[in-house]
Amino acid sequence: MGFESEKNNSVLSKLATNEEHGENSPYFDGWKAYDNDPFHPLKNPNGVIQMGLAENQLCFDLIEDWIKRNPKASICTTEGIKSFRGIANFQDYHGLPEFRRAIAKFMEKTRGGRVSFDPDRVVMAGGATGANETIIFCLADAGDAFLVPSPYYPAFNRDLRWRTGVQLIPIPCESSNSFKITTKAMKEAYENAIKANIRVKGLILTNPSNPLGTTLDRDTLKSLLNFTNERNIHLVCDEIYAATVFNTPQFVSIAEILNDEKSNFNKDLVHIVYSLSKDMGLPGFRIGIVYSYNDAVVNCARKMSSFGLVSTQTQHLLAKMLSDEEFVANFLCESSMRLGKRHKHFTNGLEQVGIKCLKSNSGLFCWMDLRHLLENSTLDSEMSLWRVIINDVRLNVSPGSSFDCQEPGWFRVCFANMDDETVEVALARIRRFVGVGVKENGEETKPVKNKEQWKKSNLRVSFSKRMYDESVLSPLSSPIPHSPLVRART
Amino acid sequence: MGFESEKNNSVLSKLATNEEHGENSPYFDGWKAYDNDPFHPLKNPNGVIQMGLAENQLCFDLIEDWIKRNPKASICTTEGIKSFRGIANFQDYHGLPEFRRAIAKFMEKTRGGRVSFDPDRVVMAGGATGANETIIFCLADAGDAFLVPSPYYPAFNRDLRWRTGVQLIPIPCESSNSFKITTKAMKEAYENAIKANIRVKGLILTNPSNPLGTTLDRDTLKSLLNFTNERNIHLVCDEIYAATVFNTPQFVSIAEILNDEKSNFNKDLVHIVYSLSKDMGLPGFRIGIVYSYNDAVVNCARKMSSFGLVSTQTQHLLAKMLSDEEFVANFLCESSMRLGKRHKHFTNGLEQVGIKCLKSNSGLFCWMDLRHLLENSTLDSEMSLWRVIINDVRLNVSPGSSFDCQEPGWFRVCFANMDDETVEVALARIRRFVGVGVKENGEETKPVKNKEQWKKSNLRVSFSKRMYDESVLSPLSSPIPHSPLVRART
Repeated sequence: MGFESEKNNSVLSKLATNEEHGENSPYFDGWKAYDNDPFHPLKNPNGVIQMGLAENQLCFDLIEDWIKRNPKASICTTEGIKSFRGIANFQDYHGLPEFRRAIAKFMEKTRGGRVSFDPDRVVMAGGATGANETIIFCLADAGDAFLVPSPYYPAFNRDLRWRTGVQLIPIPCESSNSFKITTKAMKEAYENAIKANIRVKGLILTNPSNPLGTTLDRDTLKSLLNFTNERNIHLVCDEIYAATVFNTPQFVSIAEILNDEKSNFNKDLVHIVYSLSKDMGLPGFRIGIVYSYNDAVVNCARKMSSFGLVSTQTQHLLAKMLSDEEFVANFLCESSMRLGKRHKHFTNGLEQVGIKCLKSNSGLFCWMDLRHLLENSTLDSEMSLWRVIINDVRLNVSPGSSFDCQEPGWFRVCFANMDDETVEVALARIRRFVGVGVKENGEETKPVKNKEQWKKSNLRVSFSKRMYDESVLSPLSSPIPHSPLVRART
Repeated sequence: MGFESEKNNSVLSKLATNEEHGENSPYFDGWKAYDNDPFHPLKNPNGVIQMGLAENQLCFDLIEDWIKRNPKASICTTEGIKSFRGIANFQDYHGLPEFRRAIAKFMEKTRGGRVSFDPDRVVMAGGATGANETIIFCLADAGDAFLVPSPYYPAFNRDLRWRTGVQLIPIPCESSNSFKITTKAMKEAYENAIKANIRVKGLILTNPSNPLGTTLDRDTLKSLLNFTNERNIHLVCDEIYAATVFNTPQFVSIAEILNDEKSNFNKDLVHIVYSLSKDMGLPGFRIGIVYSYNDAVVNCARKMSSFGLVSTQTQHLLAKMLSDEEFVANFLCESSMRLGKRHKHFTNGLEQVGIKCLKSNSGLFCWMDLRHLLENSTLDSEMSLWRVIINDVRLNVSPGSSFDCQEPGWFRVCFANMDDETVEVALARIRRFVGVGVKENGEETKPVKNKEQWKKSNLRVSFSKRMYDESVLSPLSSPIPHSPLVRART
């Protein structure tokens, strides 16, 4: 760095000089460990397997097949080039009308066709990351607060807080009732904030939940709406995992509750965040959506679109793809089936060695219960166990503490960002870790260590809470070290 | 709106309820007038011609030809589909390494190969709009100020101020010295701010200038660097029109000044904003770049990339296209030649009827001097003349006041966003306006009005400063009126 940091403090902004971005978390440290030594079945069979990344890689073949059959959908084919100049040149912040129509229809389909969406309320943003920030910028000023049930997505600290200056106040959820949100906990969080003279502007939900992989039932959604409506505060529903539901009960969108004939809720206080990163597995395309029932919010969010518009090349392609109703119906059905199959196989594998997960019906991950492997029921013990898992078991899973889970011993494990073979290697490593003999790479192996031995074994690297020095990990000979928050959204 | 506005004021953020976005400007009102009645040579020959939009539409044929010859460059062709999953799935906020390398190389080429750029300092943002906001978020806190030579790009009010809370302080430039930035004006602006207890964090330049179409010479750049360095404040150079230079003197980038052997400037205070929207004519693709010489700024801006990443589909295509050195060399040469030809033709046409423009060598527009057509030398007279031009002459040009130009009678006229035939229609209308007979649509016409008659004629619409009611203009039967700031960047 050319400047000493004190000098930078006066010359740069607070954003550039403080640590509020939130990347100082084991959630991202785990990614760095993976980036430093990534597993490859042939080139690096002992590398770290990435199970900290909520990506949906199970249905690319369906998308690729559609693209091959529809060359006209791209502006970069002989068949589609005629549209190039009109599309490359288009920068209206409303987005292509056909794109918004296709997104609205896709949102309807991912909610089982039980509710429809108005294309004129579909606002574009740069991924769910941008969509989440946009809605907060519209609803709250710096210093205001949003309630958020915990455990919650670690990068909310960046998306919702960093540049907006808004605070997050957790509503703690506990394993004793399967991490359900209770009215008591909500009220306590709200009232404590009021006592502390903090202006609470709303509540933000992730439904289906990241990291739990569970969905909220109709009654819970109603009670959350009652809670927020009564206090004249907002309810923001992050529904980016809507189409990852692979088992009953089916997903209920907040849109369905509002659509209910008997519903008398104030719609102006309800907003949905959506994306194609999870449901379609297209995080690189940066499709974030704010869908608000409040006209003023739609107007304001639309103006903010200018900062994170989706490339029109991508809008055009997806407008065509998502307008193909047959494709969409088949994709959603097949994707759900494949996720369900993968989930079942993975959780069965864990159960065989005595590891349970929270019962779930959605998501690209399990919420794994390793409480029985902790030396003590403390967050320090959780971190020790996590270091062993990353460092010796060579799996990047994410500790519950990085999701602000107050109860030690829970871990999020992603299962949809890898092929079948990698899942087998991961399961084999877990079995070996808990002391069960397995076949790995075709060879018979014996349990070399039991869990106590693993726990007591020397760690390969001397860890601090800040696991690695950034510069050590940088894969480039760059003056700029790679950052652990490399993923825009997980 | 479901809420009354007072109610919204307490429920929504200040951003959503105040007027700071800056769309309440004739600059955007002119776009609305165009959107409401757009010119088409056959379907609407009396419609408004859009000359308020700085788009570069002169070289699409070159790009389209390249795309047809390089089907493998797209992930949506049979030839390129193999890369689909890897690219669609990629969300690293550093961007594709090959994309950053290609951008760095393109930046070098657009600066005549006289200076090179480090790909590891290339930071992505959502268009120049996003890049400008990002650099301000990195450098300044709410309440801080940036100096900006005026006239300046109207949407700076949105890009630099709106969500950051930063103030802009104009450095007035005048026609008496061809709108050059003087040290005296800079010092005055700076010292007045200090006296008013405002923290000035930097100066932002647009070079080549929008709206002037002029470039800064080496000595001026050095004196600006001296000025900012001496005060330990930043110099941000918006160089998004770098490759639009069509005449001597050649463009000098701030990078060249820093690169100078004898240079002893503090690089940590210098930052470049770049984009492909103007130089390549691809505003829909949303390529914004922050290039900083300050490591801490690169790190912070990179983290902010998460909110406005470029779609990887687009990154991939452009990485391939801009790596083709032969294509780039030919494109830059041809684009400059075509812009020069168009500029010459258009300004010659104006000169024939006694309209002069500021002498310029770059940009997609002219800075047109209509002072002699004002009734009085006041901004009110400028607005009256502008209304006549929009409403009767049917040309959307932008009044100087919307660029914060203090001297009445200047207008920005864009010339690169239309075909040759439309240019002829526009010139014919201007000739008719100033009282010279012309051939329009093949028919001989006579001057029906002289300029006095035009000036005195009744306006077709009763104008207020806020020219139209938004809802009247909305082309959709939507609850959400279309906004005048429809373009993400102009």
